[in-house]
Parts: sequence; C-alpha cells; structure tokens
Amino acid sequence: MRTTPVPLQMYHRLSLYLNYLKQDSLKDAPYISATAIANELGLNDVLVRKDLAVAGKGGKPKIGYSRSELIADIEMFLGYNDSFEAVLVGVGNLGKALLSHKGFEDCGLKIAVAFDSNPELIGTQYKGKKILSSAKISDLCKRLNISIGILTVPAACAQEACDALVEGGVRAVWNFTPANLKTPESVSVKNEDMSASLAILIKLLTENLEKREPD
Amino acid sequence: MRTTPVPLQMYHRLSLYLNYLKQDSLKDAPYISATAIANELGLNDVLVRKDLAVAGKGGKPKIGYSRSELIADIEMFLGYNDSFEAVLVGVGNLGKALLSHKGFEDCGLKIAVAFDSNPELIGTQYKGKKILSSAKISDLCKRLNISIGILTVPAACAQEACDALVEGGVRAVWNFTPANLKTPESVSVKNEDMSASLAILIKLLTENLEKREPD
Repeated sequence: MRTTPVPLQMYHRLSLYLNYLKQDSLKDAPYISATAIANELGLNDVLVRKDLAVAGKGGKPKIGYSRSELIADIEMFLGYNDSFEAVLVGVGNLGKALLSHKGFEDCGLKIAVAFDSNPELIGTQYKGKKILSSAKISDLCKRLNISIGILTVPAACAQEACDALVEGGVRAVWNFTPANLKTPESVSVKNEDMSASLAILIKLLTENLEKREPD
Repeated sequence: MRTTPVPLQMYHRLSLYLNYLKQDSLKDAPYISATAIANELGLNDVLVRKDLAVAGKGGKPKIGYSRSELIADIEMFLGYNDSFEAVLVGVGNLGKALLSHKGFEDCGLKIAVAFDSNPELIGTQYKGKKILSSAKISDLCKRLNISIGILTVPAACAQEACDALVEGGVRAVWNFTPANLKTPESVSVKNEDMSASLAILIKLLTENLEKREPD
C-alpha cells in the first residue's frame, strides 16, 4: 500500500504553520495563539490546537505559544534538524526551478548533485550544483550515501531513472513526473501530480461559479 | 474556510485513474477492473470501486469497465470537456515548466497569455505564449474573461499579483508560491506548497528508515 494515510496531512499542515510563523509580518510578535493561526490559514481551530499539542510543548493560557519555541518544536518534529542528501534527475525547466528553490535547505534537504542525459548539460553547473551523466546515477548515489531522489525527467524516462536511483540505495523518490513508478516496498514514493492538482482546482472553480448563479 | 474537504481527494484520485487508464501499456486492453486499478496504484479497492461508481456508468460483472467509456466518463465528471482560460504570472523556471507542460490542454486548461515584470521578457514569447507586462494583468483578464490565474512569481510579489488577478475577475488562483494569499470568498485558491510536500516526503523516508532498524 503506497497510499497516503490521513495523519500525513498533519505533516502538511505543520509545514504550513511553520511557513506562517516565519513570515516577516510576525517578526515582532513574541506570542501567537492557535486561533490566530487557524484564522489566518482558514483552518478549523480545534484541528490546529490538536496538531500543535502533538508537535509542540504547549502554550500558556491566554498568552498562547512562544513563536520562536513553536518554530523550533515544529522543525524538530518534522525532522528538519536532520539532514537528508538528495540528487535531482532531469535538469529541464522544472529541475532548474527546484535547484533554484531556496527553502529546501531550511527543511534539511541538500541537493548534492544533479543528473541529465543531455551532453550539452553534462559537466556544467546550475546554481552551484554539478550536472553529471545519468549513467552515473546508481554509482554516485551509493558512494555519497544519498537517501532521496528527485525525478524531473520526461515521463517516458521516469521508470529507468527511478530504477537507477533504487539501485543506488535511495530510500525515497520525489516524483514530479506523471509516471506511475514501480519501486520495492522499501522505497517510498511521493507523487506530485500536476493533473491531479488541476482536477481539484477545476472542481473548486466550478463550485465557485455555481455559487454565483443564484445572484 | 479555505481548507480542502476530504471529498476533494476523490477528484485527485480520479485524475490518477485517468492517468493510468491512458497509459500506453493499456492501449490494447478493452476492459479493466476496479481491482486492477487499485492494485496498480496501491489503493484500497473498495475505495476505487466507490469512486468509479460515482464518476462512471458502471462496469459489467466479471468483465469490468470498458476502458474507453470509463475514460470518457471520468473526463466528463472532472469537467475536462469544459474549457477554462488561464493566465500565468511569473515566467521564471517554474513558469516556463508549466508553460511547457503538455497535459493541461487535455484537462481543459488553456493558458492564454503569460505576464512578467522583467523588461527583457516583455514582448517575447515562450512556447507560443505571449509574455506581457504584469501591469496589464487586470485589464487583460477582464477583456479575455479569464477564470484561472497561475502564480509562479517570487513570494514577495505574490499578493500584489494575486490582487491584480482578482481585480481582473479571476475566480481561481493556482498558487505555486509559499505566500499565504488573501482573496475574497468568491475566489478559490489551490496552494502547491513544495515545503509541505517535502515535509510528507521526509516523514515517509523516516518511517521507512525506522522500519529497517529491526533487521
């Protein structure tokens, strides 16, 4: 079973809280309440309170949570203090966008090296990351003890690249392709499917447009 | 409340089924069972059966669903036969990746035009889409009757771009920035938060590594 059980959504929400707590506009706020977070993010405040009870050390009645402590607690809970070495396969536009993303290191993700099969890219660098031949994926992953593979190749090459990552000992694949990857049980896959997100967006839009009708 | 209620996940799953049903490897299969889909995607087969009962016209006992009819039913259910005009704001790497994405038109999404504030990009084209000045967002959205805005700008510019889209009458914003956008009730927001996805990936990886310990 590679489905995402419901509790995983808590990790998603905790990451949203963290994002919000670190916002510039809160820089001078020493304390924050669960209700304020819930209102800001449009979430149910009972749910937010529960999440924070699991991840944090607890707030003070009528004052709320110390913002800096809560940030530290959530980061600890999410495992952001550990560090995970990753490689990225496929240096197209999406691959470049991910290599440029500044937030990953804050979450403990370090992209050690990138791979591509385009001879014009091999041997060059992008944002300080070396781009090597895809033929070297499994060797290099083994040697650097890489735990995460990020896949941004065309769908048709996805399984092959995934197999090379698995052979290299990677334990989690972050799949940005629409391919339905086959991996052994011991390797987790997190799919980022644009079409699936778009299906939800269109549903939200349609509901929204229907609401307009009675006016 | 701008949370995603649980049933929206069905739209997500239906999109995954569609993806799978359209795979090349199934090209010569006239029929398919809910169990086969469930096994292939690592989902619970009762859940898949329920989803298909809602979206499709039903399968035949012991034979399953006609693949082509099921594809047509799901596409109809997801609203992919309607067509939605969108604009994209922010032609960086991620914006370019989305402008290059071939699957959107199959889902009924047409990106009419892109916007950027970089004078070097304004007036040029990318993948056949014109890039115009961000100053024209609201005027153009009104004129072209755009319903969806795709945001791929830096977080610091996200609210301003979002406000321009809302002023232009857009009813749904697909937010690829980490910004927590403020919109009126009448405008839906679908957030694609990389850090939140990464939090889940790290959780899956950690669980996975812990499982290894007893060996």
